[in-house]
Amino acid sequence: MNIRIVLKLYGLLIILLGLCMSFSYIWGLYYNEPEKNAIAISIGISFFIGSLLFYLNKNAANDIYLQEAFLIVGGGWFVAGFFGALPYIISNSIPNFFDAFFESVSGFTTTGASILIDIEKLSKSILFWRSFTHWLGGMGIIVLFVALFPFLGVSARHLIKYETPGPIKTNLKASTNQTAKYLWYIYILLSLIECLLLFIAGMDLFNAMCHTFGTMATGGFSTLNKSIAGFDNKYIDIIITIFMILAGTNFNLFYFFILGNFKTFFKDMEFKVYILIILFSSIFVSFLLYINKYYSTLLKAFRYSIFQVVSIITTTGFCTANFNEWPEVIKLWFVVLMFIGGCSGSTGGGMKVFRIIVIIKFAFQQILRLIYPQGVFILKIAKFPLPKNIMYQILGFFILAILIFIFGSLYVSFHNIDIITSFSAVAATLWNIGPGLGKVSAIDNYYFLPSDVKFLLSIFMIIGRLELFTVIVLFVPHFWKK
Amino acid sequence: MNIRIVLKLYGLLIILLGLCMSFSYIWGLYYNEPEKNAIAISIGISFFIGSLLFYLNKNAANDIYLQEAFLIVGGGWFVAGFFGALPYIISNSIPNFFDAFFESVSGFTTTGASILIDIEKLSKSILFWRSFTHWLGGMGIIVLFVALFPFLGVSARHLIKYETPGPIKTNLKASTNQTAKYLWYIYILLSLIECLLLFIAGMDLFNAMCHTFGTMATGGFSTLNKSIAGFDNKYIDIIITIFMILAGTNFNLFYFFILGNFKTFFKDMEFKVYILIILFSSIFVSFLLYINKYYSTLLKAFRYSIFQVVSIITTTGFCTANFNEWPEVIKLWFVVLMFIGGCSGSTGGGMKVFRIIVIIKFAFQQILRLIYPQGVFILKIAKFPLPKNIMYQILGFFILAILIFIFGSLYVSFHNIDIITSFSAVAATLWNIGPGLGKVSAIDNYYFLPSDVKFLLSIFMIIGRLELFTVIVLFVPHFWKK
Repeated sequence: MNIRIVLKLYGLLIILLGLCMSFSYIWGLYYNEPEKNAIAISIGISFFIGSLLFYLNKNAANDIYLQEAFLIVGGGWFVAGFFGALPYIISNSIPNFFDAFFESVSGFTTTGASILIDIEKLSKSILFWRSFTHWLGGMGIIVLFVALFPFLGVSARHLIKYETPGPIKTNLKASTNQTAKYLWYIYILLSLIECLLLFIAGMDLFNAMCHTFGTMATGGFSTLNKSIAGFDNKYIDIIITIFMILAGTNFNLFYFFILGNFKTFFKDMEFKVYILIILFSSIFVSFLLYINKYYSTLLKAFRYSIFQVVSIITTTGFCTANFNEWPEVIKLWFVVLMFIGGCSGSTGGGMKVFRIIVIIKFAFQQILRLIYPQGVFILKIAKFPLPKNIMYQILGFFILAILIFIFGSLYVSFHNIDIITSFSAVAATLWNIGPGLGKVSAIDNYYFLPSDVKFLLSIFMIIGRLELFTVIVLFVPHFWKK
Repeated sequence: MNIRIVLKLYGLLIILLGLCMSFSYIWGLYYNEPEKNAIAISIGISFFIGSLLFYLNKNAANDIYLQEAFLIVGGGWFVAGFFGALPYIISNSIPNFFDAFFESVSGFTTTGASILIDIEKLSKSILFWRSFTHWLGGMGIIVLFVALFPFLGVSARHLIKYETPGPIKTNLKASTNQTAKYLWYIYILLSLIECLLLFIAGMDLFNAMCHTFGTMATGGFSTLNKSIAGFDNKYIDIIITIFMILAGTNFNLFYFFILGNFKTFFKDMEFKVYILIILFSSIFVSFLLYINKYYSTLLKAFRYSIFQVVSIITTTGFCTANFNEWPEVIKLWFVVLMFIGGCSGSTGGGMKVFRIIVIIKFAFQQILRLIYPQGVFILKIAKFPLPKNIMYQILGFFILAILIFIFGSLYVSFHNIDIITSFSAVAATLWNIGPGLGKVSAIDNYYFLPSDVKFLLSIFMIIGRLELFTVIVLFVPHFWKK
């Protein structure tokens, strides 16, 4: 294995993180906060270690094969989580390592689960870093990498493949480096528009930026303890709802949209199913909330329903209401939405709508197989047959997800934490959502969990963000024996 | 479709049920209970309707193809549930139809879930019928049928196929009629031995018979409100534990065992995994209970652990302790055991150990496929490659189970019943276990649920007993269009 190229790229990644931290430093200067020194130290450490790794391996061959690619992507996210935690630890905002690592990984993986009891106590510069990690992780730190460093050449394709969500990677008929750039341009453009709108709706620039990061990355970190409910502004609710929906959409579709290819945009099967699920769920939840007298008018019920539904299915995790107190069937439906997640190629987490479609189609085919024992069955998505290896991978993904889920829930409940909390803590981290049910709901958070559980959940966030296989492969002996 | 052969066999089935009710009548005579008249009326109704159906269709052609086979087996279980409810309704023991149907289906499907608050209030003859339905359903009413009526000939193979649990039907190198007979002989033999042992251990003949039915069928109906805990006899605990394990074993293996082919018995992969899961779980649970001071000695903890573990994994549902009060991780592990279930070809429910092995192997292969992209992967079980259509069916089974599970839990929770209760009520009925967690635990039961939920859960019991496909096919339009 070419370990030197792996280390060289880790070095570059760490330097890049140090550079990104300087934005936080600027806010620290602007608000004249003492935490700016801690950030400066973090930048220094990152530059030093990053440069050292880069320098020591600067002559590494550029060969990136399977093993290297998995290590760069899978390991890279752990590295990012570790260095991203430095500002928290050094500034004493989050002195405990496991807590800081949890918060940092929760940021990069766009989970939005927090161990902080009082968010508003934190300085602006630290809060900015917290939200900024969302934005960096949303489109993918490796994708950013590939966009910035053309020297990776064709090897880049491997890297993007293991980081981008979704079972099929749409080919934009451009080089990998170009594709990565387009995706980032779209991401930046949408972010600018949202930020402007939030500013117009009444947020100051700092909050508009932080909440744009949380929305576009489907992250969910807020600067307020009450999350979006703290603003209590219906325009902000509407803007964030719309941009969460956009962030949960396949970014390749925006590319077609910008090119004027509206047909591809509106005819995309996954997008249609995604929108239908959101509409159906919002209407269903609104009625239930209205009938059960949670809200006085149907319109008000709809405003809170659609926000929570979209926040859950896109795996953002922003809140304008505490759904842990809503009727049982809604809570259970939200758990189902957590598993569904956004579209492939979006910044959303979960299993992705596309995989759900394939899995249900496959199960239905097995029933038909019994009725027509001589029939030949080919799984088609939007009239195109799905290659068998992709079908297998999706089925394997589903089984692995359930297995990780069972193992995780058992591990958490081993600390005598109730089943609902254990179950939803794993779901909320594995699918990068943030708030769960029970003791990890929108109002409470993860601070009370033991360190080992926090560490496991941090790993789950990375496993979920990289869609299981990329990280799990690293734990299989065959991978290292090869 | 040849609907007449279907109706003719329904007629025969109903007559058979009437005949079986006469055993209850004998107990009614013996204890001189007024309920014996209600049983006599039930027998009369069954004989009349059964004979009528048989007579009107006595000239039906003997052709049983796919559609007929599904209707005979799938519909037959609904018919049995309906007629089996007559003694409850007519004797006024369970006056409400939905309650009586639930109790009857729970009996035949060997679920053991009850809507009765005070079991001991019931007369002996009714209690006997209740337990006897377990025993009839355990080995399969259709298998019994095939054993009794050789006129079905080769068509019998279809019928058995859709009733016997497990994805692969072992070929005993005998005719279908002979195989059915062998299975029933083994079932009767084991039942006689258990009954004798329970009698020696201190039960009277009535209780020994009723509890043998509950054990050998992995049913779980008891004659006491406190279930097996009511006897508080360690020999009874041990006997029932052992016979539950046997009842959860593939009955084909006993056939080989009797023939002196011990190698096949002990080398069976599914059996080995099944025993390992039981041992591992019992030891794990014992330690946890001992450490958490639920029991004063490790041995006592083991006695209650192994009983509950075996009762859950074999999906029997007998209780000697209320595990709803045990540590959270044990409860969650029990939910996992509920899903695993017994071996294929046993009287146990659940997904079956064999399917679990295949599913996990499949998922692991998808990881290897990433590591060796050029590799060719064949799923082997005990060195034999698994045919692709069976692998697909097992994967489809898994997905369908999860989908039914989600739909069922949502439906139950729609009545504002908490998630744990909803979730475990569906698991406990779909996998034919009986007691769940929360409000449907070993101590409480299903009486408080609304009628529509009881009816849905009754259908789930049949769906689970016939391993999903046989019943689900009946709800698919393609089946009827053919």
